[in-house]
Amino acid sequence: MATPTTQPSDPASDAGSLSAGIAGASGYAGRELARLLAGHPQLSLQTAQARSEGFDALSPQTLARCDVAFLCLPHGASRPFGEAIASAGTVVVDLGSDFRLDPDWAYGLTELFRQDVLDSRQIANPGCYATAATLALAPLAEAGLLDAPVAIDGKSGISGAGREPTEFTHVSEIEGGVQPYKPTGHRHIAEIERSLARLAGEAVPVTFTPHYAPHSRGLEVTCYARLRRPLAQDEAEALYRARYDAEPFVSVEERVHPGRLHGANSCHVGIWIDERTQTAICAAAIDNLVKGAAGQAIQNANLVLGLDEAAGLTAHGLGA
Amino acid sequence: MATPTTQPSDPASDAGSLSAGIAGASGYAGRELARLLAGHPQLSLQTAQARSEGFDALSPQTLARCDVAFLCLPHGASRPFGEAIASAGTVVVDLGSDFRLDPDWAYGLTELFRQDVLDSRQIANPGCYATAATLALAPLAEAGLLDAPVAIDGKSGISGAGREPTEFTHVSEIEGGVQPYKPTGHRHIAEIERSLARLAGEAVPVTFTPHYAPHSRGLEVTCYARLRRPLAQDEAEALYRARYDAEPFVSVEERVHPGRLHGANSCHVGIWIDERTQTAICAAAIDNLVKGAAGQAIQNANLVLGLDEAAGLTAHGLGA
Amino acid sequence: MATPTTQPSDPASDAGSLSAGIAGASGYAGRELARLLAGHPQLSLQTAQARSEGFDALSPQTLARCDVAFLCLPHGASRPFGEAIASAGTVVVDLGSDFRLDPDWAYGLTELFRQDVLDSRQIANPGCYATAATLALAPLAEAGLLDAPVAIDGKSGISGAGREPTEFTHVSEIEGGVQPYKPTGHRHIAEIERSLARLAGEAVPVTFTPHYAPHSRGLEVTCYARLRRPLAQDEAEALYRARYDAEPFVSVEERVHPGRLHGANSCHVGIWIDERTQTAICAAAIDNLVKGAAGQAIQNANLVLGLDEAAGLTAHGLGA
Amino acid sequence: MATPTTQPSDPASDAGSLSAGIAGASGYAGRELARLLAGHPQLSLQTAQARSEGFDALSPQTLARCDVAFLCLPHGASRPFGEAIASAGTVVVDLGSDFRLDPDWAYGLTELFRQDVLDSRQIANPGCYATAATLALAPLAEAGLLDAPVAIDGKSGISGAGREPTEFTHVSEIEGGVQPYKPTGHRHIAEIERSLARLAGEAVPVTFTPHYAPHSRGLEVTCYARLRRPLAQDEAEALYRARYDAEPFVSVEERVHPGRLHGANSCHVGIWIDERTQTAICAAAIDNLVKGAAGQAIQNANLVLGLDEAAGLTAHGLGA
Repeated sequence: MATPTTQPSDPASDAGSLSAGIAGASGYAGRELARLLAGHPQLSLQTAQARSEGFDALSPQTLARCDVAFLCLPHGASRPFGEAIASAGTVVVDLGSDFRLDPDWAYGLTELFRQDVLDSRQIANPGCYATAATLALAPLAEAGLLDAPVAIDGKSGISGAGREPTEFTHVSEIEGGVQPYKPTGHRHIAEIERSLARLAGEAVPVTFTPHYAPHSRGLEVTCYARLRRPLAQDEAEALYRARYDAEPFVSVEERVHPGRLHGANSCHVGIWIDERTQTAICAAAIDNLVKGAAGQAIQNANLVLGLDEAAGLTAHGLGA
Repeated sequence: MATPTTQPSDPASDAGSLSAGIAGASGYAGRELARLLAGHPQLSLQTAQARSEGFDALSPQTLARCDVAFLCLPHGASRPFGEAIASAGTVVVDLGSDFRLDPDWAYGLTELFRQDVLDSRQIANPGCYATAATLALAPLAEAGLLDAPVAIDGKSGISGAGREPTEFTHVSEIEGGVQPYKPTGHRHIAEIERSLARLAGEAVPVTFTPHYAPHSRGLEVTCYARLRRPLAQDEAEALYRARYDAEPFVSVEERVHPGRLHGANSCHVGIWIDERTQTAICAAAIDNLVKGAAGQAIQNANLVLGLDEAAGLTAHGLGA
Repeated sequence: MATPTTQPSDPASDAGSLSAGIAGASGYAGRELARLLAGHPQLSLQTAQARSEGFDALSPQTLARCDVAFLCLPHGASRPFGEAIASAGTVVVDLGSDFRLDPDWAYGLTELFRQDVLDSRQIANPGCYATAATLALAPLAEAGLLDAPVAIDGKSGISGAGREPTEFTHVSEIEGGVQPYKPTGHRHIAEIERSLARLAGEAVPVTFTPHYAPHSRGLEVTCYARLRRPLAQDEAEALYRARYDAEPFVSVEERVHPGRLHGANSCHVGIWIDERTQTAICAAAIDNLVKGAAGQAIQNANLVLGLDEAAGLTAHGLGA
Repeated sequence: MATPTTQPSDPASDAGSLSAGIAGASGYAGRELARLLAGHPQLSLQTAQARSEGFDALSPQTLARCDVAFLCLPHGASRPFGEAIASAGTVVVDLGSDFRLDPDWAYGLTELFRQDVLDSRQIANPGCYATAATLALAPLAEAGLLDAPVAIDGKSGISGAGREPTEFTHVSEIEGGVQPYKPTGHRHIAEIERSLARLAGEAVPVTFTPHYAPHSRGLEVTCYARLRRPLAQDEAEALYRARYDAEPFVSVEERVHPGRLHGANSCHVGIWIDERTQTAICAAAIDNLVKGAAGQAIQNANLVLGLDEAAGLTAHGLGA
C-alpha cells in the first residue's frame, strides 16, 4: 500500500467535515477503506485501529466519537464492538458477517434495500459473493420468474481469502487453474436466500459453489435458473435494463469481466436466455474489495449521513 | 518449446517400431502431440506437417504411409484429410470437431466408449470441455439420476483459445478475473448431450457456459444437476468410485484443481451432494492440451494399435 | 473499461473549466488518460479521438481548440499532429517518442526537469522505462558517483506492449517466467543517457535489457552501478531521501513493488549498497500506464496550465 | 500432486533395479523428486520420508539401505543426515545448502564439474539461482573475459520460496509486478563466486539481486559483465555454442524463457554483446524445481551410479 504520508493531499478533501474510524484497518478490506476515504470529499479518516504496529489501538470508545465507524473484524469479533458503538448513537457499518441476519440491522445491499439503509444507523454490509449473486438474480426474482433451486457458480480472486497466509493463498497452490472449494454450505447462502425470498415473495433455495481463481482482486458469479415461463432474450435484457438503468453503480453489459472493474464501486451484470432449455444465465462481476466490501460500506455510510450516495466512489475501473 | 534437437534421446524410445504423423503440428495441440510422442516407447514421430516454416508440407499421402495420423487442423479442414487417410486404411485420430457427430467415426471419450474405439480405425477425439463435463456427469447419467436440464459452468485457460493472437488471448484483457464468453450455443453442447443421452438412455439437455480464466493450461467444469431421487453424499461417492476405480486416468478427489495436472493425461473428478436442495454438484479438472486433446488422442491410438493404453502417458502432473 | 455513461458524475469535477483533447484514445495510454481526466477537478475531456468506432475522428484542428492536447499516437505519427497544434499556441503533451530528443520540446520527466516544463508549452512525455530508470539513478548521477557504464535490468507487464494482439501479448507465451527481449539497442536508451549526462555533467553510458513479465500493469527496473568512491548504506539512503523528500510522487521505500502502485502516479525508489563490490543497486517501480504515461502527462499539463501539480492524481495505488 | 496410486505404472520402470530414498519428501523439491523418479527407468522410490502424515518417518538408517539418498531438508538439518548416510557408504545427494561449500563433497553443477561428481559418492546439489547464473557466465569466465564485479539480476517464481505459506507466497502480495528482495548478501553468492573463480583462475566478485516474479515455477537470470577485451556478437555466440554443444541439457537460444521449460531438466542460455558499452549480457532460464533442484539431483545420481546421465530426465518442457 502506498505510504499515506508520501501522497499529496487532495485539495478537494479539505472540505471533509465528517469523521470516520476503522476497526481492523490492517486487513485487505480495512486498507481498502483507508484508500477510498483518502479520496472522499466529505469523510476523513480519524482513527485507523488494528492489533498490528503502526495503527491505533482498538477502542470502541474512540470509534463512537466519530461520525461513522467501519468494522472490519474477524468473524465473531464484531458483535461487541458493533453493539457498543450503535448504543452510543454512532453510525456503524459492519463489514463482517455477525449482523447480516440480525433483524435490528439494515442489510446494506444498497441497490435492492436502499430505504432500509436510509431508515437505519446500523448497517450490515453484505458479503462479496452475496452482493454479486443477488444483484445478478434480483430482476428475475422480482418478476417471479425463478424456478428454484438456482445454481450459483462463483469465482473469486485470492484477496477474498484475507491477508493471513495459508495453503490457499500460496501462488503455487492457486496458479494454473480454477478450483472449487467448500462446494456446499457456504456462509453466504443464507444471505442470498433471505434477499431473494424478500424480492420474490416466496422461498428461493440456492446451491452455491465458490471457486478460487488465480488472481488477486475481482469476483464473478454465473447463475443458472430454470424459468417459470418463457422469456425471450430481448425481454430479459429489457427487464434488467429497466431495473438498473437509474442505478449509478450497476450496469448491464455484454462482457462481464472483473478485470475491468479493479478499484471501482461498480457491478457489471449480464443476462442471457438459453431458449433450448429455458434456462436464464445471469452473471455479475465486481471488485470484491470495493463493491464487495469497502466501497459498498462507504456507499451505505454516504446514504445514512445524508451525503451524495456516490461521494468518494466515482473512480473508474482500471481496465487493462 | 524446447528445441527437439537439444534434447537427449530417450533410450526407451528406440524400441518404437510404429510411426506417427501430425497434420497441423504448429498449433498448441500439435506441439503437445510432438512433446508426448517424444516420450512414447512404441510410437515415433515420422512427419510433423504444418504451413509454417520448419515443418513438413501438409500431405495426406505421407500421413497415409504412417501407422497412425493425428489431425490438428482448423474447423472444417479435417474432413478431406481424414477421409483420404481413412480410405487408405490408416488409423486416424482427428482432434478437431469435423467428425465428432459423424456416425462413421468412433467418438473417442475413451473411458466411456472404449469398445467403440477398439472397433474402429477412425477416431474423433472429443472436445476439451466435452471430455471434462461428460466424465463429471457420466456416473449420474448411467444411474438415471439426472433431472435435466443440467447446468455446466466451464473455466478454461487461454491455451484453449489457440495460438493465434486475438483480443481474448491478450494478457491485459484476461488478467484480473474470470469472464463468461459465448454463454449459450457453444459447439461442445451437442457432443455432451449425445454422450449423456447414450449413457442415460434418454435425452439429457444441458446448459453450458464457458469462461476464460487467467492462466494458460488447465480446464475445470462444475456441473449442477437436480436429482431424480434422494442421494446421500456417501452413496454418491461410492457410485463415482465404483465407476472410475479401474480407470488408470480418472480418479475421484476431494480437491479438483487443474493446476495439479499440468502435463498429465489425468482427469480428477469430484462429487458433492447439496442435500438442502437435492442438487448434485460434480466437477472435473484436466489439462486441456493433454487429456483434453493430445493425450487422449494418443490414448485412443494406443488402443486401436493394440498397445498398452497408457503407453507414453504415464507422466504425473507438475503440481506446484 | 467501465462505460463512462454508467458512472456517476463527480461533483468535484463540475469546477472543471479547462478543456482537454486526446488523439489516440483507443489504446491503453489513451484510455488511461480518459480514466484519469474523469476524476480531474479542473480539466475535462472535450474530444476523444481515434480511428476506432465510438470515438471522434482524428482532427488536429479540434485539438488545437482545447486548452491542452494529449497525443497517444503510434511511433512517427505524432510529429505532424504535434507541430500543427503547437504552432496554434495550444499546450501539447506528446506521449510517444517522436519529440523526446527534440530540443524544441521540454522533456517532461517532471521531478528532474520541472523548470523546463514550466517554461514550455510543448512537452515530450518520457518513456515508461526511462521514467523509472532515470528516477532510480538520478541522485547518484547528480552526486557524480556513477562509474559508467551502468547496467539497467527492466521488467514490464504486458500492457506496455500495447493493445494490438501479438505473439508477445499471448497469455500462453508470457506465463510461467520472466524473459528478456531486445537485449540491446532499446529505444529508451538515448533518453536515459541524455538525462543522466545532464544530471551528471558528463556522459553516462548505460546497458539496458527489458524483460516481459507475466502481468498486465506495472514496471520495475533494477540498476547496477559501480561507485566512483565508497558510499555507506546510510549515506546512500540519506542522499535519496534528501533528493526526493519534497516530491509528492516519489518516495524511498524498502520494498519496491509495482503491485502496490496500480492506478497511482507514484514512483517507489530503493537504494542498496553492496559494500563487498562497491556496487550501488537502485530500483524503481511505477504503474507504466500512470507515472509511466498518462499520469505523468497530466502532471506536466497541470504545471504548464498553472494548476496544482497533483490535481487529479491523488489516487493511492490499489495494493492487494 | 496427482495421487500416485491412481497413476498407471510405466512398463519401462519395471526394469528399475536400484533403490532411492527421499528425506523431506513433502516439500516442493521432494515432491518433484518423487514425480521424476516415477518415470525413471532404473531408479525406484523405496522410501519417501517426511514429518507430515502419509509419509514414512525420517530415518537415516532406512535411507542408508537405499542405493541413493536424496536430502531435501531445511537449512542446517541436512548435515547430520548426510554425514550418517555417507559414512555408511551410500550415495547421497543433498539438495540443501549445508554441504555446498564443504570440500569433502562434490559440487554438483554437472556440466561444469562432471568429473568431480564422477569421483565422489557425496554430492552437494547447487542452488537454483547458482545453477542458472553460473551456466550463463561460465563460457566468459573460462575465456578470461569477465571484468568483475559482475551484476546478476535474478527472477524466480514463488515455488522457489518453498511450501510454507508466508507474506511472500501470498497471491495478493506477489501479483502485479516483479519485486527485488534481499538485494545484497544472498546465500547463493558464495557458490557462484567459488565456481567462477575456479573456471576463471582468479577471483570474480559478483553482485546478485533476486526478485520475486508473479508465477510458480521457473527462474531466469540476466547477467551484466564488462568485457576485458572486445568481443563481437558472433564470436560470443560461437564461444557459447562450442562450450555447450555436446551438453544434452544446455542449449544456446535466442529466446530465453522459463515458461518453455516447465518440467524439463533443461537450461536455455542466451548471450548478447552490447558493443556500445562493451558489456556482455548473458541470460539463463531453468525450471527451478527440475534443473534447479530435483532434476539436477537425479542427473548427478545417474552419473555416480553409472547410469545414463539423462535417464529419467528426457521430458520436454511443457511450453504453452
